[in-house]
Amino acid sequence: MKLSQNGWVVIAGLGPGNEALVTQEVRDAIGEATDIVGYIPYVKRIAPREGLTLHATDNRVEVDRATHALEMAAEGKRVVVVSSGDPGVFAMASAVFEALENNAESKPEWLDLEIRVLPGITAMLAAAAAIGAPLGHDFAAINLSDNLKPWSLIEKRLQLVGEAGLAMAFYNPRSKSRPHQFARALEILREACGADTLITFARDVTKPGQELLTVPLKDATPEMADMRTVVIVGNRDTRRVGNYVYTPRYAAEG
Amino acid sequence: MKLSQNGWVVIAGLGPGNEALVTQEVRDAIGEATDIVGYIPYVKRIAPREGLTLHATDNRVEVDRATHALEMAAEGKRVVVVSSGDPGVFAMASAVFEALENNAESKPEWLDLEIRVLPGITAMLAAAAAIGAPLGHDFAAINLSDNLKPWSLIEKRLQLVGEAGLAMAFYNPRSKSRPHQFARALEILREACGADTLITFARDVTKPGQELLTVPLKDATPEMADMRTVVIVGNRDTRRVGNYVYTPRYAAEG
Repeated sequence: MKLSQNGWVVIAGLGPGNEALVTQEVRDAIGEATDIVGYIPYVKRIAPREGLTLHATDNRVEVDRATHALEMAAEGKRVVVVSSGDPGVFAMASAVFEALENNAESKPEWLDLEIRVLPGITAMLAAAAAIGAPLGHDFAAINLSDNLKPWSLIEKRLQLVGEAGLAMAFYNPRSKSRPHQFARALEILREACGADTLITFARDVTKPGQELLTVPLKDATPEMADMRTVVIVGNRDTRRVGNYVYTPRYAAEG
Repeated sequence: MKLSQNGWVVIAGLGPGNEALVTQEVRDAIGEATDIVGYIPYVKRIAPREGLTLHATDNRVEVDRATHALEMAAEGKRVVVVSSGDPGVFAMASAVFEALENNAESKPEWLDLEIRVLPGITAMLAAAAAIGAPLGHDFAAINLSDNLKPWSLIEKRLQLVGEAGLAMAFYNPRSKSRPHQFARALEILREACGADTLITFARDVTKPGQELLTVPLKDATPEMADMRTVVIVGNRDTRRVGNYVYTPRYAAEG
């Protein structure tokens, strides 16, 4: 990737946690940056150096953080917004474009800024790899948090995607503030996908202390997930072979 | 990743094409390999060296290739099966587990082999990053080839996932042998998602000659895709800001 010497914003994916999963493209962008912006634990992954300013902020202000990144780029800074996983999957990339849109009238010059999204290994694909290949056929990625959409819409999506026979990966499956919702999600999934369908809970994937647990949906309980867990539900063909869980590439009529 | 000195099989994702998107974990596994197995263009990406045997095969024999990899590992070889993108997304990982299952009775000792899947940057996420953040909200990944599933099932999935309001990424959207199918897919998508929904065609993503085209579904034609194209259909909120296409993180009631 060729980046200019003027100000720019790169939204970079650091992957799920293991440094060996960061791409060279992302390392190069960090090497050229003057400023790093991101949620505290992700900014902690960046080695400090002369000429690099680290701006670590709290998680609940994604659009403010994105606006700050655009402001600095407009001043000529070379800004990397760090995201875990892939920035385009339930992470910072959309927040940056939302900030750009929110400011399109007051700061039309921001629309000409160089903005690049650098992909990373997203948690569901690291979790799938760790257990085998449960996403080897058609699948959906769904954020189970109702912070940014109504819970009723999430229920509708689980029902329809289950009926479509897709495997599913869930981000943000469960939080302390809404413990009943994941229980309800499991209920819908048992109905829509069948109680024998395999579900995998992958916690702290690729990090020290990684935990992997696969059970049939009928044996799954809400306590098996927390906000550090990615959850993968297979399709009706998903099965075990040896120590692995995989979904065949083929499917029969639905 | 710690690999033993006995035989093993690693299924490694080389990403969409740009070498800067290969992870260090994958580079390390290739560095330890005695044998590389894969489809000709992917094996061509591996630098030859003393002690490394390259086995390049044709695309239409995935399970045979996987079986060959397992056979060699059982003989003590350190085998890397190379895949483009992420091996777990419409690629070689499931084929290896299929081969393991097919041989579970005749070769039960293969079940004890060390098999690892190393994730890579899959084409849809590289394409999404190249255009902005069209997959920034819930989405589905669907293989439009009917080689391994009936076309009627694909139609059903497009309808249900469209009704669920998910963005979608399509692999293998169109081939010479079934030109009418992608036209039919566009028809279903216009009906299920709305004719103004944005669709992006990303060809040779991250490679020299990368092409990106975004139009509303009503203006999309089958000729805009071929087998080197990844196609991304947004949801009803997907829009342009500046030169970018993005899907907001939020959604209203469906």
